[in-house]
Amino acid sequence: MRIEILCTGDEVLTGKITNSNFSYVSQKLEDSGLTVVWGTTVGDDRARLEEAFRLAAGRADAVIVNGGLGPTVDDLSQEIAAAAAGVPLVLNEEWLAKMESFFSRRSRVMPPNNRKQAMLPEGAEVLDNPIGTACGFALDIGKARFFFTPGVPRELRRMLEEQIIPRLLARSGAPGVIVLKRFHSYGIGESHADALLEGIEAMVPDGSVKLGFRAHYPQLETKLTVRGTDPDDVARKLAPVTAQVRLRLGNFILAEDDRTLEGVVLAALLEAGASLALVETFTAGQIAARIAHLPEAERAFRRGIVLRDLTELGGAVGLEEGPALGPLSEETAAAVARAARAQAGATHALAVLIALDPGADAIDFGGTIHIAIATGDRLAYRRSRILGGREWVRLGAVEMGLDCLRRFLQDLPVAERIDFEKV
Amino acid sequence: MRIEILCTGDEVLTGKITNSNFSYVSQKLEDSGLTVVWGTTVGDDRARLEEAFRLAAGRADAVIVNGGLGPTVDDLSQEIAAAAAGVPLVLNEEWLAKMESFFSRRSRVMPPNNRKQAMLPEGAEVLDNPIGTACGFALDIGKARFFFTPGVPRELRRMLEEQIIPRLLARSGAPGVIVLKRFHSYGIGESHADALLEGIEAMVPDGSVKLGFRAHYPQLETKLTVRGTDPDDVARKLAPVTAQVRLRLGNFILAEDDRTLEGVVLAALLEAGASLALVETFTAGQIAARIAHLPEAERAFRRGIVLRDLTELGGAVGLEEGPALGPLSEETAAAVARAARAQAGATHALAVLIALDPGADAIDFGGTIHIAIATGDRLAYRRSRILGGREWVRLGAVEMGLDCLRRFLQDLPVAERIDFEKV
Repeated sequence: MRIEILCTGDEVLTGKITNSNFSYVSQKLEDSGLTVVWGTTVGDDRARLEEAFRLAAGRADAVIVNGGLGPTVDDLSQEIAAAAAGVPLVLNEEWLAKMESFFSRRSRVMPPNNRKQAMLPEGAEVLDNPIGTACGFALDIGKARFFFTPGVPRELRRMLEEQIIPRLLARSGAPGVIVLKRFHSYGIGESHADALLEGIEAMVPDGSVKLGFRAHYPQLETKLTVRGTDPDDVARKLAPVTAQVRLRLGNFILAEDDRTLEGVVLAALLEAGASLALVETFTAGQIAARIAHLPEAERAFRRGIVLRDLTELGGAVGLEEGPALGPLSEETAAAVARAARAQAGATHALAVLIALDPGADAIDFGGTIHIAIATGDRLAYRRSRILGGREWVRLGAVEMGLDCLRRFLQDLPVAERIDFEKV
Repeated sequence: MRIEILCTGDEVLTGKITNSNFSYVSQKLEDSGLTVVWGTTVGDDRARLEEAFRLAAGRADAVIVNGGLGPTVDDLSQEIAAAAAGVPLVLNEEWLAKMESFFSRRSRVMPPNNRKQAMLPEGAEVLDNPIGTACGFALDIGKARFFFTPGVPRELRRMLEEQIIPRLLARSGAPGVIVLKRFHSYGIGESHADALLEGIEAMVPDGSVKLGFRAHYPQLETKLTVRGTDPDDVARKLAPVTAQVRLRLGNFILAEDDRTLEGVVLAALLEAGASLALVETFTAGQIAARIAHLPEAERAFRRGIVLRDLTELGGAVGLEEGPALGPLSEETAAAVARAARAQAGATHALAVLIALDPGADAIDFGGTIHIAIATGDRLAYRRSRILGGREWVRLGAVEMGLDCLRRFLQDLPVAERIDFEKV
């Protein structure tokens, strides 16, 4: 089945907003085993919308149209759709009632121009939007089935997943169930992971398991798309493959599916009844910012300290009475972690201290990262060098600090060689 | 002049990467007074690329093609371009020599498949790429001028600005100079700013000044695009309009052009020889993360403290011996800012303390923000309520904290009513 995506709206066409809806829809369809073959973007312009509809109707089996369902005069999707299908616009009483109740539940009267959102091409199939006033709909134009979706990302996402993908899968004649299994890792690059997972797809000989990757430095997402006749069939195919992926990527897997590195770290702290003190330098608060705002973090995140002048390290963690701290080293990092833990009254402390190379930012600018984790009776240390410019070093150090803590809390080796560091 | 953008590549089509190149190119052209009317995305597929080239060649005056100039077999842009123009591919000896020297400067031998990058359609005009091996080029196909650009964002950006936009402006016959003037503000929404700036365009009666906005919560960017015959003409037109914008948006303008809020704050601290202590709660390190990683921040950013358990506030800033701090209030915030300043030995302290509403995250979830700024002899305080969900509150509080400090350092009123807060 050839699927096209047609994004509408002046704000998207002129780059006023980045079109993340396109990549979201496309990725979600690919993850469901469906294939997007063409993308079009046009503004709120009658002639160009008509032309884009006509071209897609002649080329595709299904078209997802995004945007143009709002109440204002520049929202043209219903009107152009009706014209392209050669049918009139008719009032959908059911959707009108739904909108009126939507407003009355918020103690507001529906403005008259919202009525336009209930005008649908005759014969259109309604696609429910439980969280907004824009009514989605499906309609045949030419030889293609068109699916019209709202521009608001959360409304689009829900409609795509609940209403559109099941209809596309039914039309594509693909077997009943498709499941996406995801593994998140830190420290191995895409080509390395691809090599480690060689032969994984062939474990299920009928070709129903597909391996894919999505790299967003410093993390890598490994994806398995599995087709089956029913949920049991999928589970039976997936189990041995999942076990192999876990075995081969091993300690580098930091979370699966919707979980995140920071979520896993926080959950491990909460489960152990532990609390965290954090000291960071050039990461500048970004490690704290990943974890400390999460719900329930107030129970485990005790204190974060951010410093840039490394000569202030001792004083900031209450070491001013002791001997002066030397340059960054295992001893310094350990002393800082231990002192921060004591100062904050936490069970665990993580210190991520960075000695930046001298000089201006450049593509080979680097830094040396010293990470220490202390509890009452344990200490772990990791030293690493990252090159690639200030931002690259900073992003890498944030992830490395959090991942070392994840490994420590899971009793895994903290200092395992990764692909992004210089030996 | 009708301009189209044609993005190529499986990674973009399947949503594996978000297509930020499209919005970058589109916005940059709009900012130069040029108009994009159509966007197309196709994968690395011969037939679909040919079809996309054919359609664009029949519709547009100019087409920017992005991607497909690499050394691998799935990079097809030169080949399809030559076929569409009906000319052969010929080796460009000059570009080949350039690539060979590119590799030898890095002490590497050029791999044989890179030779492909010097094969250009006969008659193509070379567009220089001083930072990569992909050779840009321009070529007439049908009635349109096609400009081929690399997929690597920094290579694309440089080629677009230095090579392509000047050629497009020359072809469009528009007057010689276009300048983009930008104002960044925090605290006024787009429609409010639009109302405040009513009549601004008409100050220059020949229509050569265009007003636009780009909202990215919590900041708003106000843009003036000015056309003129030469730099003097533009400067003459821009001066009174710029003065009016500054007057009407007043204290809300936090920076202009390429400057940022955090950059302005850091510059003000450095200029005053001042140093900063920072205490934050639910913003979770994000305020520190905006400022403390900047070059030279090590000279002014003294210490950041991040806490989530508000009962620990006193202890963390060295107030444990004093009376227990009560619930958040002006008094609490002032005491915390003063103590943090003394503890860190800084000239200035900023405390951004947030009492979150109870309950789970929701679209109307809110928080009360208490901001105090202390020096040796001055104290400023601002209280604000923001509703809109956890992320909305957090983003708003980060910006409000930084903007209050900016106002304080610039001797402006710290507590001025903004559009995003509940009274």
